[in-house]
Amino acid sequence: MVHHAEDADRRPPAPGMEPTDCAGADGLREEEEAAERVLVSEKSWRPCPKSRRRLRGCLEFVQRQLFRVGEDWYFLFALGVLMAMISFMMDLIVYRLYEAHRWLYHEVGDYLVLKYLSWTMYPVALTAFSTGFSQSITPHSGGSGIPELKTILTGVMLEDYLAIKNFGAKVVGLTCTLASGSTVFLGKVGPFVHLSAMAAAYLGKMRTTVTKAYEDKFKQNEMLVAAQAVGVATVFGAPISGVLFSIEVMSSHFAVRDYWRGFFAATCGAFMFRLLAVFNSEQETIIALFRTNLKIDFPFDLPETFFFIALGVICGVISCAYLFCQRWLLGYVKENKFTAKLLATDKPVYTVLVVLLLASITFPPSLGQFMASRLSMKEYLISLFDNRTWGELARNASPAVLGEPQRLWQEWCHPAVPFFGTLVFFLLMKFWMLILATTLPLPAGYFMPVFVYGAAVGRLAGETVAALFPDGINAEGGVRPVVPGGYALAGAAAFSGAVTHSVSTALLVCEATGQLAHALPVTLAVLAANGVAQKWQPSFYAGTIIVKKLPYLPPIRSRHMASYRVLTEEFMDRHVPSVAKADGFAEVLAVLTATGDAEFPVVESAAVPTLVGTVSRAELVAFVQSRGEAGTPRGEKPAGTVGDDCAIEPVMLQLSPWTSLHQAHHLFELLKLQRLFVTRFGELVGAVTRAELRRAIEQLADPK
Amino acid sequence: MVHHAEDADRRPPAPGMEPTDCAGADGLREEEEAAERVLVSEKSWRPCPKSRRRLRGCLEFVQRQLFRVGEDWYFLFALGVLMAMISFMMDLIVYRLYEAHRWLYHEVGDYLVLKYLSWTMYPVALTAFSTGFSQSITPHSGGSGIPELKTILTGVMLEDYLAIKNFGAKVVGLTCTLASGSTVFLGKVGPFVHLSAMAAAYLGKMRTTVTKAYEDKFKQNEMLVAAQAVGVATVFGAPISGVLFSIEVMSSHFAVRDYWRGFFAATCGAFMFRLLAVFNSEQETIIALFRTNLKIDFPFDLPETFFFIALGVICGVISCAYLFCQRWLLGYVKENKFTAKLLATDKPVYTVLVVLLLASITFPPSLGQFMASRLSMKEYLISLFDNRTWGELARNASPAVLGEPQRLWQEWCHPAVPFFGTLVFFLLMKFWMLILATTLPLPAGYFMPVFVYGAAVGRLAGETVAALFPDGINAEGGVRPVVPGGYALAGAAAFSGAVTHSVSTALLVCEATGQLAHALPVTLAVLAANGVAQKWQPSFYAGTIIVKKLPYLPPIRSRHMASYRVLTEEFMDRHVPSVAKADGFAEVLAVLTATGDAEFPVVESAAVPTLVGTVSRAELVAFVQSRGEAGTPRGEKPAGTVGDDCAIEPVMLQLSPWTSLHQAHHLFELLKLQRLFVTRFGELVGAVTRAELRRAIEQLADPK
Repeated sequence: MVHHAEDADRRPPAPGMEPTDCAGADGLREEEEAAERVLVSEKSWRPCPKSRRRLRGCLEFVQRQLFRVGEDWYFLFALGVLMAMISFMMDLIVYRLYEAHRWLYHEVGDYLVLKYLSWTMYPVALTAFSTGFSQSITPHSGGSGIPELKTILTGVMLEDYLAIKNFGAKVVGLTCTLASGSTVFLGKVGPFVHLSAMAAAYLGKMRTTVTKAYEDKFKQNEMLVAAQAVGVATVFGAPISGVLFSIEVMSSHFAVRDYWRGFFAATCGAFMFRLLAVFNSEQETIIALFRTNLKIDFPFDLPETFFFIALGVICGVISCAYLFCQRWLLGYVKENKFTAKLLATDKPVYTVLVVLLLASITFPPSLGQFMASRLSMKEYLISLFDNRTWGELARNASPAVLGEPQRLWQEWCHPAVPFFGTLVFFLLMKFWMLILATTLPLPAGYFMPVFVYGAAVGRLAGETVAALFPDGINAEGGVRPVVPGGYALAGAAAFSGAVTHSVSTALLVCEATGQLAHALPVTLAVLAANGVAQKWQPSFYAGTIIVKKLPYLPPIRSRHMASYRVLTEEFMDRHVPSVAKADGFAEVLAVLTATGDAEFPVVESAAVPTLVGTVSRAELVAFVQSRGEAGTPRGEKPAGTVGDDCAIEPVMLQLSPWTSLHQAHHLFELLKLQRLFVTRFGELVGAVTRAELRRAIEQLADPK
Repeated sequence: MVHHAEDADRRPPAPGMEPTDCAGADGLREEEEAAERVLVSEKSWRPCPKSRRRLRGCLEFVQRQLFRVGEDWYFLFALGVLMAMISFMMDLIVYRLYEAHRWLYHEVGDYLVLKYLSWTMYPVALTAFSTGFSQSITPHSGGSGIPELKTILTGVMLEDYLAIKNFGAKVVGLTCTLASGSTVFLGKVGPFVHLSAMAAAYLGKMRTTVTKAYEDKFKQNEMLVAAQAVGVATVFGAPISGVLFSIEVMSSHFAVRDYWRGFFAATCGAFMFRLLAVFNSEQETIIALFRTNLKIDFPFDLPETFFFIALGVICGVISCAYLFCQRWLLGYVKENKFTAKLLATDKPVYTVLVVLLLASITFPPSLGQFMASRLSMKEYLISLFDNRTWGELARNASPAVLGEPQRLWQEWCHPAVPFFGTLVFFLLMKFWMLILATTLPLPAGYFMPVFVYGAAVGRLAGETVAALFPDGINAEGGVRPVVPGGYALAGAAAFSGAVTHSVSTALLVCEATGQLAHALPVTLAVLAANGVAQKWQPSFYAGTIIVKKLPYLPPIRSRHMASYRVLTEEFMDRHVPSVAKADGFAEVLAVLTATGDAEFPVVESAAVPTLVGTVSRAELVAFVQSRGEAGTPRGEKPAGTVGDDCAIEPVMLQLSPWTSLHQAHHLFELLKLQRLFVTRFGELVGAVTRAELRRAIEQLADPK
């Protein structure tokens, strides 16, 4: 790369310019003087040759340094900026589409049928298009994509999943999904992480083509990890928690250098994302996405900590119910004959049916009026994070005007029902509607809805506390009313954290709202919720992996101390098809036809099976084919053996039969391995793949 | 543990109480009825036996669950609370001691000699006691302890470093060091991380003794990682950045479950720490440690981003100079005859000399008046983070009254010198004074001084920008003055981040000051500073490791692509002393006397050196001793071979000669290995230890 940059710099040498750093100083001076003699007129244009030379030397040094450090950093910068621009453009288009829907609904007048049609048909059409368009291009573009990415990061290659053709399908599909707004109640984070990973994979390929540099699996992984951070950061404009969230959700181990890369890329992305908002005159300067005005002087009283922890536990329990139902429904939809057939052949029809149901329920003149269904996802959050107490606001209410952020809360007030009722109704209905929406086969994220749901849970808790203690909890020293917005923050963080099994949502909430005063109680709530959820249910992503049967290595839980006592020889696969060095045509053919492995171990001989190395299937097939053509006509056994004619790859790592399950699992997880051979005193005795490990771990967790 | 808890619960069985879950339901009912017949009077006291039984069953179930999940969590909770209490108590004592000094200085009147003596003798006495006391108990208690912990976490066992006897020495020593205040200008973070690790190691040992549970190296490491997070979190009251900072500084790879543990422990610690402040009536509720009142509505203008990045680069350059000088001085002090002799024999004398020099310079009536030396470390930070512009304050100044936080800035104003002058003087003097202070052989942290120094750099930059643009940068739309406090935040984060090579200081600043509005520009500044510093200098901790020659594995820099092409056979140690299975007394004795290895590989025979396993030195010594006693008197060769009489441990992992340096390094780093054997087709051909790896990496970085 260094040379490349220098070459590009030197290729068109101006007449009279001397090479600065290759030739010796004497030769230089002579050349220069010669040039001066020939082109005297140039002298007036180029004074102080020595200073110029020095300056140019300095510049080249700086350039070299920049390019040497750079490369990866340029790549990450480009990735961050690119994704920020896509995210911003998408937000803009979604906003316009959403406004169009609102305008349409407003313009059709008071005819209930027209109102109903305009309310339902718009999202139905959008989601049907989203499903049809994305599914017709590639079947991989549905869903959030995080479970698949999680699997890829453990070292399994899912083919075509990061192909660039998914990109367009996912962008268009996601835009349509988001434009149908809070009717469908789906989000953006998951698909954006997937998009970011695809962009990184594509940019990586481009870079390899351009620079001809060596790019291995490690490097690709590094870039994927950074890409996830960018994905989260450019949605929320929150760089730090973006990195942490992607780490927690994606991996079981990570390297600190990956963390730095992610941090850099995410900061570039988040900065660009917020910058674009400023340029677009939405904001005067760079501020948080969902800004709140919670009181900072006295954010919460000490005894409230208990309420926050209780809220965390409640969120944890609800998240368990949510995760269980969600997994059950996902399985049910796949098994039920009717839905399975629909999902297999007519995905858009399924989408239309489900979205029609969802839209009918949220239709404002019917049930929708009890669940503030006219608000968009962002407006939901703004209204729920409101720093004022709804209870107090309701007492001196003024006529509802939609649109002003200060009055969004009025959507939650219904003449007949107090806002407690609407909140409870919202929670009850959205619980199953949200689960139903996650079965839709279109590009969509499931984090944001969970986040909003948690905020509603928190708001309900906060308003309850505020109603119980109208003058604040600690009566002495003046009235310090409870801030229900703080509970909404804690609820959002705790519920989304419990569903995704991550604690960095505590920071995400702080970064997204731009304030830290509630950091400690929010963190406590998130920890409590995680404690409950991690104990009883797999995370949302792990659950999807289980349902989709992706090749994934389950973790060993810390209480399974027995994993130290289970040895590799107890669970390894003893029947490993292998070839001996002296094997000829017949033996190799037999092995090839017996199994479909992509790689075979080579041993010294069948009698003394010392592991020598591995040979690829392609190599063996070529060996058989060359012998097959040359050998059979003459009727005699073809000459040549595997040891002589095939390229044998050395084996880097071997297990011993006495390695514990714990150690083997640790190795597979850390090094992202697919298969390891087991040798005893150098002799091949078996092999361990992820399948064997998974079986052993499952047996450990559930002994017969 | 589960049984233990249940046993404890059941041991004193009340009369008439039945065992609830052991016996069958029928047996139970009979027993119960019998009990009822005998003790009728009890019935009135214990109604509804069935419900009670159910309730008790539930409670026991809950208890079992709690204890099963718990264990580790209880441990982490205890650790967090314990360290928070120690941290708080230490702060309290330090504050009292510091106040005593201030009182003394004030009370001696206007006699300059007395003033001078009271100013200098107090810190001299404290630090001399600190040095003498801690060094007399254990030589390990000096310094911050982070470099050594970093080494321990890579898998090297430094003996006695985590012994509990260091604990007392370090607590007392650190208290004295801190009490001498800003004269010595040292901090608390590093030793506190060390203290926390010692506490974790001790608690871990206690737990193993009590529960007889299996505790291996992995578990210990997990706890140490959590302990570091607690250490940082309880000093700053900042849980999230505490975890991140400890991750970045300590390890190169990280498991997400360690992160969760750290998070939990750090949150408990930080919560407790701030809670104690509330109980002590210092604060009304839980708020940030160094609270600022920076404007939130309009924290900074867009073009200011460039100034922030420039500030980051400046901090990076200064940090390079600082790191270089610091390393040089540390080496010089060790080499110079006079200081080396002092440090070897009379450490307190060295401390006295250095502290006397430092205290004389900071003496307020002399040079101290130009560097605001009457402020404590915390007051420095509060005055530098002030949200008002000093330039404006200076124009309408009022007589200086020390102590009120709103007027601390006046310490920086001198009748003769504008505050720009005092800031520059402060920076110039503290640069070498700080470096000199790091050579002191007493328990002290080096993060806080660097943090304060960075804040001063940032304040200088901020005041300069504010002076250049008095009405804010973007004149349209009203006057929006520049906030120099924001620059101070960025400077503190960038400088401390550059010195320690970490980016989480950006979050630390936000958490410690309780506000996020400047998060993005601060992050950009930190990234810029890190970019400069990581390129040119090893981090403070890595530098100390180099100077102290601790056994540490250097990282492979990403641009060393050649590491993929260097194979293990090129750098492995080919001369591995081994024993054959058939070896007898004479051969084993020869091997034992030849080298001092703690473990020897066992091969099949000298002719066919297939690796069979390893045998410990102790085992071989026992073998030789038993043969030596029995065999020599009779003059004949003793019977028995290694293969028959010694316990041979299996080898878990082997390298092949074709493994690349990159892979080998990765393995050593990930698995915290000390030595791996290299086998070719099962035969032992060499070994790789950290020494060989280090040599290979150094050769790669600096080829001859």
